[in-house]
Amino acid sequence: MSDLPKKVIFHEEGPREGFQIEKGSFSVADRAALIDALAATGLEQVQVGSFVSPKAVPSMADIDALFAAIKPVPGVRYTALWLNENGYRRAAATPNIFLDGKILLYNTETFSQKNNNCSVAEMRERQAKWVDMYVADGVPYEQAYVLTAFGCNYEGDVSVETVVETARYAVNLARERNLPLPRIFLADTVGSANPEQIKRRIGAVREAEPDAPIGLHLHDTRGLGAANFYAALELGVDMFDSSVAGLGGCPYANHGSQHGAGNICTEDMVLMCQEMGIETGIDLPALIEAARLAETIIGRPLAGKLMHAGLPKHTIVQGA
Amino acid sequence: MSDLPKKVIFHEEGPREGFQIEKGSFSVADRAALIDALAATGLEQVQVGSFVSPKAVPSMADIDALFAAIKPVPGVRYTALWLNENGYRRAAATPNIFLDGKILLYNTETFSQKNNNCSVAEMRERQAKWVDMYVADGVPYEQAYVLTAFGCNYEGDVSVETVVETARYAVNLARERNLPLPRIFLADTVGSANPEQIKRRIGAVREAEPDAPIGLHLHDTRGLGAANFYAALELGVDMFDSSVAGLGGCPYANHGSQHGAGNICTEDMVLMCQEMGIETGIDLPALIEAARLAETIIGRPLAGKLMHAGLPKHTIVQGA
Repeated sequence: MSDLPKKVIFHEEGPREGFQIEKGSFSVADRAALIDALAATGLEQVQVGSFVSPKAVPSMADIDALFAAIKPVPGVRYTALWLNENGYRRAAATPNIFLDGKILLYNTETFSQKNNNCSVAEMRERQAKWVDMYVADGVPYEQAYVLTAFGCNYEGDVSVETVVETARYAVNLARERNLPLPRIFLADTVGSANPEQIKRRIGAVREAEPDAPIGLHLHDTRGLGAANFYAALELGVDMFDSSVAGLGGCPYANHGSQHGAGNICTEDMVLMCQEMGIETGIDLPALIEAARLAETIIGRPLAGKLMHAGLPKHTIVQGA
Repeated sequence: MSDLPKKVIFHEEGPREGFQIEKGSFSVADRAALIDALAATGLEQVQVGSFVSPKAVPSMADIDALFAAIKPVPGVRYTALWLNENGYRRAAATPNIFLDGKILLYNTETFSQKNNNCSVAEMRERQAKWVDMYVADGVPYEQAYVLTAFGCNYEGDVSVETVVETARYAVNLARERNLPLPRIFLADTVGSANPEQIKRRIGAVREAEPDAPIGLHLHDTRGLGAANFYAALELGVDMFDSSVAGLGGCPYANHGSQHGAGNICTEDMVLMCQEMGIETGIDLPALIEAARLAETIIGRPLAGKLMHAGLPKHTIVQGA
């Protein structure tokens, strides 16, 4: 009936996407405690924050202190985001960080200008230089993010052809340098994807570039996140970005806003995997506790559902 | 890739499931305004409330006044729930109501005792009498609800065999009376289903009773509701219970509770259908406005996501 993966890897982004969007200020100690709680659950990858301008994103001004405060668990990748070479240089000089060499590619001019203040073509040229920079540093070119791969909140539809062409550009950056192919992360940046679209676009990218693995970055902006996640599982996709407690946007503060609200919720998606027999390597009760810690730190009800409902009765029985 | 239905019918349950669980008291005028707003969206079926003991469910004490206050839209079914013959008699005497002859069947003894104060076998006998009562009144026996069809919050797992046997009992009640077969509503009463389980159980019931149509009653208790909905669509299921704004439970008041929280959200699921080309007959912008009205009446943020994010850019373009 479907081609579910045997194991799914979650790249936990709550500490970045979640706290980046919040208006309040949160202590390094609290954020480090959350990251430590997440790293203790079996999550293999936890994104700590962004190396971006403190003026643009004040909540990330103390990212160096945050990296210094965490208690690294061996084997866990503590990752970060950067949007330009300067940010990468800061990241590369940070203790405890795992440098997952990634690039960001846009599909629409308006989003590229708003997010990176350059054209789609200019961003491509910069990303080619990023790959060279990674190669020079001995950092593997692992991931290529194809942003707004399912639609743009400024320009509307993004064609399948555009997405495939962008993915091919990312793959060719590796081929031209005789590097292993990167994972193509199709990002539903504005949360407008539907499950059939997910399947069609994964299918199209795979047909064009069958040797590049696929990952997904999904938002639950309009309540379809879990369905989009399941649709990707059905096609065997085995790596996802997600956020504990559904962090990544305030669902009640964005009436009329269409950007970025709510990543898919890590523990809810881990539940789905485990209930369907897909391995995650994650201690789900511990992850639920981490989600509740996130809610305590943020100080308002978060979107995650499992953290409020508790595990199903039969799951408790299975775990006993 | 899948067998999506061409059209999906939503049975809107927010006015019942939503207000039944709320602790506050809400005026007949407000609830009638919500029902009128829902009926104006193209929804074909709106459940107004329950004919139950006012002592057990005080919020439904004024259901007669509520039915009297709505402004019936021709062609819309205004339905209600009853749990015993007395409740049905009250419903049958109510102006504006549409009597969809339904029965309720349990799969576990504990849930049956808690919900209906009788054994599974006793409930079956009562339901046989309900069918005779419907026949005597000229009310079609339309729907058979198989409760806790995906697991029970008291007893844990419910076997596929049990669910199939319960569904067969419901179908046989029709066969023995030479009636058209009812629709089998598989109910994820406690919100513990996963998408693969949804597919397996729909498949098993269809294999046993291929001539009985299937419907689903889903809760989003643990964040898998949209995925479960999509899994059912993939098998061609074309009728669902759902609640505007995700009414049907307070997601932030049930820490540790495992019962009943949050139906799947009507407008989010309508968006999924419409984005995938499935007809719903529903004016989605009007439904979003009804969801916002529900939130205003309830007076706290509700779980629906689309109502807070707004339609995707490309959808707005398509509708223009």
